[in-house]
Amino acid sequence: MEHKRSYKYHVEPREADLTKRLTLAGLSDCLLNVACSDAKLSGYGSNDLGPNAGWVILRMGLEVTRLPEELEDITIATWVSDANRLATTRNFEVRDSSGAQIASAVSIWAALDLESRKPLNLNEFDFYSSAIQDFPMPNTPPERLTSPESLIKYTHQVLYSYVDANGHTYSINYLRMALDTLPLETITNHAPVRLDINFMHETRYGERLTIVSDGSPNPLFEILAADGTPACRIRIVWKPVPQNE
Amino acid sequence: MEHKRSYKYHVEPREADLTKRLTLAGLSDCLLNVACSDAKLSGYGSNDLGPNAGWVILRMGLEVTRLPEELEDITIATWVSDANRLATTRNFEVRDSSGAQIASAVSIWAALDLESRKPLNLNEFDFYSSAIQDFPMPNTPPERLTSPESLIKYTHQVLYSYVDANGHTYSINYLRMALDTLPLETITNHAPVRLDINFMHETRYGERLTIVSDGSPNPLFEILAADGTPACRIRIVWKPVPQNE
Repeated sequence: MEHKRSYKYHVEPREADLTKRLTLAGLSDCLLNVACSDAKLSGYGSNDLGPNAGWVILRMGLEVTRLPEELEDITIATWVSDANRLATTRNFEVRDSSGAQIASAVSIWAALDLESRKPLNLNEFDFYSSAIQDFPMPNTPPERLTSPESLIKYTHQVLYSYVDANGHTYSINYLRMALDTLPLETITNHAPVRLDINFMHETRYGERLTIVSDGSPNPLFEILAADGTPACRIRIVWKPVPQNE
Repeated sequence: MEHKRSYKYHVEPREADLTKRLTLAGLSDCLLNVACSDAKLSGYGSNDLGPNAGWVILRMGLEVTRLPEELEDITIATWVSDANRLATTRNFEVRDSSGAQIASAVSIWAALDLESRKPLNLNEFDFYSSAIQDFPMPNTPPERLTSPESLIKYTHQVLYSYVDANGHTYSINYLRMALDTLPLETITNHAPVRLDINFMHETRYGERLTIVSDGSPNPLFEILAADGTPACRIRIVWKPVPQNE
């Protein structure tokens, strides 16, 4: 396949925040949905990896020129650019209806045995070698984040609406928890430039998580499982948005 | 227009719960999105009502034969069957790819002046009389619910991820808050048969809401604003699902 496969998406009003734009979490939802659809369409979806196997996202680096507005139509191109034994790279380019690129992302995934939680060897999936497309990555790869200087701590209990079909916290909900610790004005007075997110450990229904924030202008978050294991780290780089723009 | 206009929807895995089916809140999101799209396409969307005006949902009665599965394609037909000075009725029929009806809903809406929060007179919108289609309602109208016997109380603070573009709690998030008070097994061991939901008062970012549940098998919930005003009432009627079905 010589082109990047594309998916259309319509921004529903319920996915927009006070800025009337798709939220950072909503955009991330979109990318994960597209990854899932594209893997399935390509013949290597979670169900194709074998019984009790599935794709899990390890890291994502997302760059944003502008977040799309509510009711806007966007197109998301996606392709796999690399795979080694333990991880594969999936890329995204988000374009508006004029064709202008408004966001991009590089994400790293592993295929897991869902019972042992151990990674499967991607080299053993013959069909996967045909997945690779030799287009350059659209932005720098996701960073490996370190723990923030502990400054502010919040707690969040994982309830029904936060878990996925496997009973684990749905990955983008860590981003929602982190954003929910910020004053509303911080979110509405800034536009995201870059998001790095590392998924390190799964958490389950009922767990009481701790969210640690360094409280800096470009905040670094760490979300800890009930036993103190780091589950997710997030850094957001913002730019101020002139009000009454 | 002699037919019911229809919208296609694909159930994304992130919208499914442990039962691998679309959640009740996810189905409700769908219906509200369809209402918004259909009103806009018909020329009477929120933006067409005039500056600082918008549609708000007052009540909904939703009946479910089966919730669609993740990755399933569904079709939602919608039409307006009635309008008086203060409220209008919008209906929904949800069908699977075989054409079988799997859910339906009747919802009541008002057009509000978003500054005064007072309802607009729908009779003054000439264009709206052409909206009415004379098909029968697909189920009984939404019930007006009363306060539950106070039994169990929870609190929920309205944070960023719970508000809509107007800074109010997004209506279906009241349903998420209510479901989040239930033990996970109550949700996964039951299938919803009917949901009645009454939206009575808006709540805002930062408010600490109280969720009162009567704790009965078919639970009745009331969500109170920070000042004690009832904001939303919800009743869910379930049927048990045989496990290992």
